[in-house]
Order: sequence, then C-alpha cells, then structure tokens
Amino acid sequence: MWAQHGEVIYKMWIENAWYVAAWSNEIVRDAIFSRTFIGVPVILYRTGGGLLTALEDRCCHRLAPLSKGRLEGDAVRCMYHGLKFAPSGECIEVPGADRVPSKFRVRHFPVVEKYNLVWIWMGDSEQADPEKIVDWPFLDDPAWPSKGGYLHYDASYQLIIDNLLDFSHLPYAHEKTIGTSNYDKQLPRIEHPPFGIRLEYTADDCPLAPMNKKFAEFEGNVDRWSFYDFHTRGNCLLGDFGSAPVGQGGHGGDRQNALQFRHFTAITPETETTSHYHFAHPRNFGIGVDGLDEQVRAFIFEAFNEDKDIIEAQQKIIHDNPHTPMLPIAADKALIHIRREIENIVATERSVQAAAE
Amino acid sequence: MWAQHGEVIYKMWIENAWYVAAWSNEIVRDAIFSRTFIGVPVILYRTGGGLLTALEDRCCHRLAPLSKGRLEGDAVRCMYHGLKFAPSGECIEVPGADRVPSKFRVRHFPVVEKYNLVWIWMGDSEQADPEKIVDWPFLDDPAWPSKGGYLHYDASYQLIIDNLLDFSHLPYAHEKTIGTSNYDKQLPRIEHPPFGIRLEYTADDCPLAPMNKKFAEFEGNVDRWSFYDFHTRGNCLLGDFGSAPVGQGGHGGDRQNALQFRHFTAITPETETTSHYHFAHPRNFGIGVDGLDEQVRAFIFEAFNEDKDIIEAQQKIIHDNPHTPMLPIAADKALIHIRREIENIVATERSVQAAAE
Amino acid sequence: MWAQHGEVIYKMWIENAWYVAAWSNEIVRDAIFSRTFIGVPVILYRTGGGLLTALEDRCCHRLAPLSKGRLEGDAVRCMYHGLKFAPSGECIEVPGADRVPSKFRVRHFPVVEKYNLVWIWMGDSEQADPEKIVDWPFLDDPAWPSKGGYLHYDASYQLIIDNLLDFSHLPYAHEKTIGTSNYDKQLPRIEHPPFGIRLEYTADDCPLAPMNKKFAEFEGNVDRWSFYDFHTRGNCLLGDFGSAPVGQGGHGGDRQNALQFRHFTAITPETETTSHYHFAHPRNFGIGVDGLDEQVRAFIFEAFNEDKDIIEAQQKIIHDNPHTPMLPIAADKALIHIRREIENIVATERSVQAAAE
Repeated sequence: MWAQHGEVIYKMWIENAWYVAAWSNEIVRDAIFSRTFIGVPVILYRTGGGLLTALEDRCCHRLAPLSKGRLEGDAVRCMYHGLKFAPSGECIEVPGADRVPSKFRVRHFPVVEKYNLVWIWMGDSEQADPEKIVDWPFLDDPAWPSKGGYLHYDASYQLIIDNLLDFSHLPYAHEKTIGTSNYDKQLPRIEHPPFGIRLEYTADDCPLAPMNKKFAEFEGNVDRWSFYDFHTRGNCLLGDFGSAPVGQGGHGGDRQNALQFRHFTAITPETETTSHYHFAHPRNFGIGVDGLDEQVRAFIFEAFNEDKDIIEAQQKIIHDNPHTPMLPIAADKALIHIRREIENIVATERSVQAAAE
Repeated sequence: MWAQHGEVIYKMWIENAWYVAAWSNEIVRDAIFSRTFIGVPVILYRTGGGLLTALEDRCCHRLAPLSKGRLEGDAVRCMYHGLKFAPSGECIEVPGADRVPSKFRVRHFPVVEKYNLVWIWMGDSEQADPEKIVDWPFLDDPAWPSKGGYLHYDASYQLIIDNLLDFSHLPYAHEKTIGTSNYDKQLPRIEHPPFGIRLEYTADDCPLAPMNKKFAEFEGNVDRWSFYDFHTRGNCLLGDFGSAPVGQGGHGGDRQNALQFRHFTAITPETETTSHYHFAHPRNFGIGVDGLDEQVRAFIFEAFNEDKDIIEAQQKIIHDNPHTPMLPIAADKALIHIRREIENIVATERSVQAAAE
Repeated sequence: MWAQHGEVIYKMWIENAWYVAAWSNEIVRDAIFSRTFIGVPVILYRTGGGLLTALEDRCCHRLAPLSKGRLEGDAVRCMYHGLKFAPSGECIEVPGADRVPSKFRVRHFPVVEKYNLVWIWMGDSEQADPEKIVDWPFLDDPAWPSKGGYLHYDASYQLIIDNLLDFSHLPYAHEKTIGTSNYDKQLPRIEHPPFGIRLEYTADDCPLAPMNKKFAEFEGNVDRWSFYDFHTRGNCLLGDFGSAPVGQGGHGGDRQNALQFRHFTAITPETETTSHYHFAHPRNFGIGVDGLDEQVRAFIFEAFNEDKDIIEAQQKIIHDNPHTPMLPIAADKALIHIRREIENIVATERSVQAAAE
C-alpha cells in the first residue's frame, strides 16, 4: 500500500500539522473565504472581534456549501435551508425546530493568525498547540521587508517538496533566472534536526551576485551561504541566504553588513494532485527603497513559475503512467529522507485512527 | 447496495413511467431532435402525418448516432452505412443485402403528445398506457395562459426532487425572490395519495402578494393556499396556488374571483448526475395582458436559477466526497418518503427484470 | 478478456510494427518534436548529421519530460535536474556524479525515414527490420505528386480501420463528396495476402468522374478499379485507383494513358481512444499543374473529415455505453477479418511477453 521510494504517494498527507491556509489579508471582514485543504472544503471568516474561525464548507443537513451562506454576526447561516452555525461549528438553529439535535454540527478547525499568515490544523484538535507553529518572525518584522505571494499548483505537494529539497535542479530548471553553475556539482551538508531536515551550502571567496551589488556597503568578494530548514509537519521551508565580505566568518560570523535574504515557502495539499503554495522573501537591505519589495517578489515569481512549469508537466506524465519507476541520484538524498519521514508519520497517524475506530 | 436515507442514489431511476421528453414545439417537422433519457440516447422526429416517433439514437450495426442520420419519408437512415429504420425501430433496409435479419432493429419508445408536452416511456412498452399520464389540462387551456420553460441541471434528479418537496428552503435559497418568512416555521400537511405525495400549506387572513394586487378584483386580506401533488412515476410536481378573499372558504370554497396559479414541473433524469427540467406556471388572471406570460416565466426562471445554483453546488460537494452522511430535519419528511418510494419501485423493477433474464 | 466481434477493443494494439510517427518535414533540426504512440510519450529529434533519434519522453530520474529539455549536440539534456542522454537513450551524465549507473537510460525506439515519412518501432527492437516497412515509393516519386496531410482523431484506431475496410459507407457518410451510389450494393472481392487483406472493386464501361475529365487524354467511357491493400502491422492502407479507356484491359491492362491515384493512409494509435492519421493521394496526371496538389489534398481533407465526424460520434456513443453489441452485415467481412487478425497478433505478443517475464 505504501509507495516505494520514487513513486508519487497519493492519498497520503500528514493531518496533525499547522498548514498555511492563506495570507491574513486574503480573509477580510464580512466575507466568507473558502479553500480546500487535504481534500476537505473549508470556509474561513472573521467574527465581530476580527478573530478567525474555520469550518467545514458543507452543511451537516443536505451538504450544501456554507461558502454560499450568509454571515449573521459571529454565526454563518446555510442559505439552502437556513441552518445556522456558531463559530465553534455547533448548529444553533434549525428553522422550524424547537431544539437542535446535539449531533448537528460541522467540523471546526483550529486556526491561528501569526506572521501575517493564517495557519490551520486539519487533524486532531486536541493536538493543535499554537506553540508548534514554526518560529519565524521575519514575515512581520519591519527590518525584514517582503511581499508575500501565492501560487496554485496542479501537482501533488510531494513533487513540490522534492523540488524544494533538491539543489541540483537550480542550474537547469532555472538556467534563465537563479541558476548558478555549481549547485549540481556539490552536495549540500545534511543535518537531521527533530523538525525535519537541514541543508547547508556554502561558497567562500566568490563574487557578489550582480543584483546585490548596488546594495552592498562593501567591495570585493564574499563568503556566501544557503541554509534550508524544512519542517516536515506543515511542509514549511525556511531559508537563510546571505553574502558577507570575505574574512568576516560567513554565516557563523559577523552579519552586520552582510546582505541577507530569508526565504519562506509553505506547501499545503489541496487534493491528491493539487496544492497551495505560499511564499515570501524578506531581506535585510534596501529597506524603504521604492518598489523593491515588488521587484523581489516578481523575480521570485519568475523563478517559481519555472519550477511550476516542469513540476506540473512531471505530474501529468506520472498521472498518465503511474507505475513508472524513478531512479535515484545522489542529490535525492534529502527528498528521499523526507518522503520516508512523511510516510512514517502518516502510517502512525493511521494506526492511531484505526485503533480509535 | 441501496442508498441509505440521505445519500444521493446513483444509477437508480424508475423505468416504467411517462417522463417529459420535451415541449411539443421543440420537435419540428423535417428535423431530428436528440436527447438522452435515463442514460439512453434517443431521437425524436415527426412522421409525415406529424405523429411523433422515438428511437434509440444508436444504429444497431456499428453504433453510429441516428441523430446524424437523414429522414426519408417516415423512416430514418443512418448516414454511416445506410441502414434504414421504420418509425417502429425495425430495420427495413441494409444496403447490399437482399433481406434484413429480423433482429436488426433499434429500440422504439412509446411517445405521446399531450398538454403541449412530449411524454416518453423508457421502460417496458407493454405497460405504456397513455392513461397513466398525469391529468393536468391547464397547459393547453386558453383560460390558463403560460409560457413553458426548460432548464438543464448538472445534478441528479434526486437532489431536485428533494428541493421541490421541501418548503423550508424558500426563505433562504429564495430570499430575494419568492422567499416568504413563514415557510420554514410551519410544516405542511402531508397526504399519501396512490400517485405519490401531497403537501398542503394554507395561510388565512393575510395580505395579498404585491405582484398580484393589480390583478385582484377585490380588496382586503386573503386566505392563501399552496398545494403540491408530486407524482413519483415521472417526477411531476403539480401545484395549486391561490388567494381568495377572506371568508370565501379558501381553496375549498368559492374560487370564482380568486387569483390562482397552477404550477407544473417535470424532472427527467438524463444521466446519473444531470437532469432535464421542464416547467410552466399557468394562471387564471391577466389573460391577454401583453407580455404577462413572459413576465411570469422570467420571474419563475429567476427563482428556479436560485435553486439550480445551490443544488449544483451541493451535487459537486457530494461528488467530491460521496460518503458524507446527511442529517435529517423535520422538513425532510416528504422527501425522505419519496426517496424510499422510488427505491421500492426501482427494487421491484429490478427484481422483475432479473426474473425475466 | 478479448473483445467479441463488434466491440471496440481497448488496450489492444500490435507493438511489433512500423508505425508512421510523422511526416519527415515535421521534425526539423535544433528542435524537439514530441508525440505519443501506443500510450508511450516519445521525443524525436535530429542529430548533427540530420539522422533521427526517438527516445522515451520521460527522464528515468524523476519522470520529467525530455520534450522540455535542451539539445546539446547529438544529446538531449533533461532541464529539470540535468541528466544528459545520448541518442541511444543511454544516460551519459548525471550532474554531480562521477559515474553514471548502467541502468540509467531511457527507452530508445528504432526509427527510419522513408518516403518522406518517419517510421517508428515501439515493440521489441531486435525485430525492427527496416525491410518490413511497406514498399510504396509513390510518396517521393516526382512522377506521382502529392501533398501529405495529418488528422488527429478522438477515436480508437480500430474504429478508423473499420471505416477504411468498408466501402458501404461511401454513398452515405460521403454523400456530398466522394460518395458513389454503387459501393453499397456490390461487395468487394477479398483476398488474404500475408500482410493483411486486399479488397478489389472494379466497374467496367462507366463514365469518367467529372473532376478527372479535364485531365483525360481520351474520350468516352472507362473501366475503373479501386484496390485496397491493408497492412495489419502498422495499419497502412495502400490504394490503387484508376480509370482507363474501355477495352485497354482496366487495371490489368495498358495503364499508359489511364488516370491513376495511389492512396496512402496510416493510422497510429496514440491512446486507447485517440489516434494519429497520416495520408496522401499521389496521382499520375496534372503533374506541375499549379495548385493541383493542394486542391487534391483539400478535397481529400473534406471527405476524411466526414469520416472523422461520424467516427468520433460513434466513439462517444461507445464510450458512454461500452457494452452495447454491434450487429454485423455482409459489408463487415473485411473489417471483422482484420479485427480478428489484430487480436491474434496481440495475443501472441502478450504470450511471448508473459513467457519472458
């Protein structure tokens, strides 16, 4: 039943994780926002105090979508037969009925706003500890400006993770944008922190990237680093990229005048073959420079669309011939490790669920 | 195998029934009309005398569609290899063959024109008694003018019947059109006539609906009634709606000066997830008023499109997650009854077919 | 498991055959051409010497399409992770790896250019003898000018073969173009050469077809012939059509002043329900007449689109109701024979494959 290494793993995702649902500003007051996560249709809206609530987008009565419903104060009313639901998911009114049966409710999902992002927990609510959300304050720190972006992918989240955990595609898939020629030659150092995997690339005494030159407060060559922390629960990739003048100690030394980017990507499965992709690219330089936030985002968009193009084509090939094997290369070490970790977590979740049933 | 209450029942429809196939004026002379009923593609055309014939839209030779064929007198010729079929479905010519094998034929379906509608019988022809067509002369009575309409639904006929047999959605799905605030509070009286179900709503001493005021030949409050007769075979809903001056006895009293509508809806399954929907709304007032027929139809169209919008969304949710249960409320009593009745009739038809095979 | 006579046979095609992949001029230098044959995605490109190579359009590493790759000399590089493949399909570079594992390769398919066509062998390469390509030099003989054409069919190749091996549809499907009234009355003579089937029609002492009159160097009636050679492996139909003055001996006599067409059609399965259709119609008259090549092709296009229209409609009906039987007529003798022959060859291929596994 489980996929072998190299196969796309369908119908398989971690439930007990904080997934990114949306950017905070996507969900405005007095409107119902709807999106599907791990196969479950969900509505998100703000109650009177501005707090978010997340409910199943499917009335418990005749399965009509609540996203076609009406907000009434903190509640939402299904506009097919008028059942009304509290922000907790509890049904609080069945038109024509004196009392509401206790089993009348829709699923409620824990939801937290943090770092300008909306995080949702699709699994067992009792495990939904907000402390488990990744610690990454750059998204709402004025010293690290960025503009967040969103892509919808016609591909399994697994194929996107594969892509993120692999440096060897940079010179090829991105030959026209961020491709640099050495990433396919040198394998990253790999560490296995409890949250998932850490990849480290460094390059000493090399030229500063052209686009960064006008922002540098120094001259000459730099020591560069690219660190990736991938968090298996929630599919969050947190990057730490920078260039410091040679001799300052690189990533581990004095970063005062280093040019630095932080990178954020979160992939949330929508269905077996589609995904949500949220990203941002905060930086510590060019702060307040007119239009630079948008310029950086546009540049990242261009590179990410190169990934999207090849990954969606790959998904289509796999869909047409799902049993074709994949042959691993050395650069696949990190992604194979994470595929296995996801498989193990999913298997554990399933056995817990099976035991509970 | 049978669906539990509340589930959509796929691959399940009554065969032995008169279904509405089309409005009479949709099928003109010298042209082949094609439409699919309960999963079977059908052509309809008029023979020389103007009589209708209905045949399977699938040549018995290589399964080419007769709807791409050519009418030749009373016969239709398949324009792939030239087989010619009489209005009875019998093949009367195989080009190049001296005689036509007796098993060469396409299915012929009993068809009747009545009340400006074309009625088709998709089941056992021997049971196709035209007397079983619902008795409802309002559609071709000049004293009851109307314009008929048609909607194509991307939803199972079951979900549409559910909607028709439920008053509780009126204030919600139709809040902008025909929604009135009391239909979700008061349950209808239910009767079980042999043909299916009868729902009755009455409201005494209430104001006349605004749109009716200019046609009333009386002043003051009215007693109102809404009676629905649903015929399980053929999915026909026949409505009797009216408003009479208080004290005349309402629906059971003197209807001489009452403002009355009759309502007709017939749902014919096309496939498991799509349906044909024919309707009309005859009235006994405003006769000969210029444009009023169209005005009434446009108003009904608007309300019916509100149903269509929510029902097609409901169908999509059910399709994506077909095993999600539905929780019944008191207002579902009529629709649950009819779902069971349909299940019983279908089960009987299947066991008869199984015994015959 | 095997289809009965008359059913469409899904997932069934001969592998060991030369199939037409493309017209030679469709595959230009410095560009990758991609197309799917018998369910397998393939790229075709020209190496430095102009020779063709055909490889699986699916990298062995992560299944990305090589059609999004980059030509580098005679090799093609996958532009996802940079694996590079020789024209033989052998992987000759894995970026970052010192050596390439021997099993790293993509399938290579024998390919031959002949008669301005590209022929591909999707089966066992050891059997791919170019001598087995049909002998038909008219496509690149200046004495027999023509313009080749291509149609994409939304239909199984089987339904198209059925059409080609049947003359009885000519007066019906082609009533407006090439339909002549006697083809459905007279059955062809059938022979069974080793390559497949041969159909022969002749008509003596009949008028010359109107469109041919201006090219005839003679007056009066003609003896006409239509010979079809269908090659089961590769689905090639080779036609020999002509009109000679009465008394010259027809097809078997003096063809010096006869007006002749040769006809070529090759059907290559793309998927179970789609096909490639290449055709040309060389003639021995009107050579050098300005625009005549295009005029003949346009005429053939029109007639072939009549077939395509009815066959795609037939495919759709079969798809919706795949178990409806077909009833054979006398004119189906040839197509039934070939369906059986294909079934037998496929069964043999499968048992050989099963024995090898």
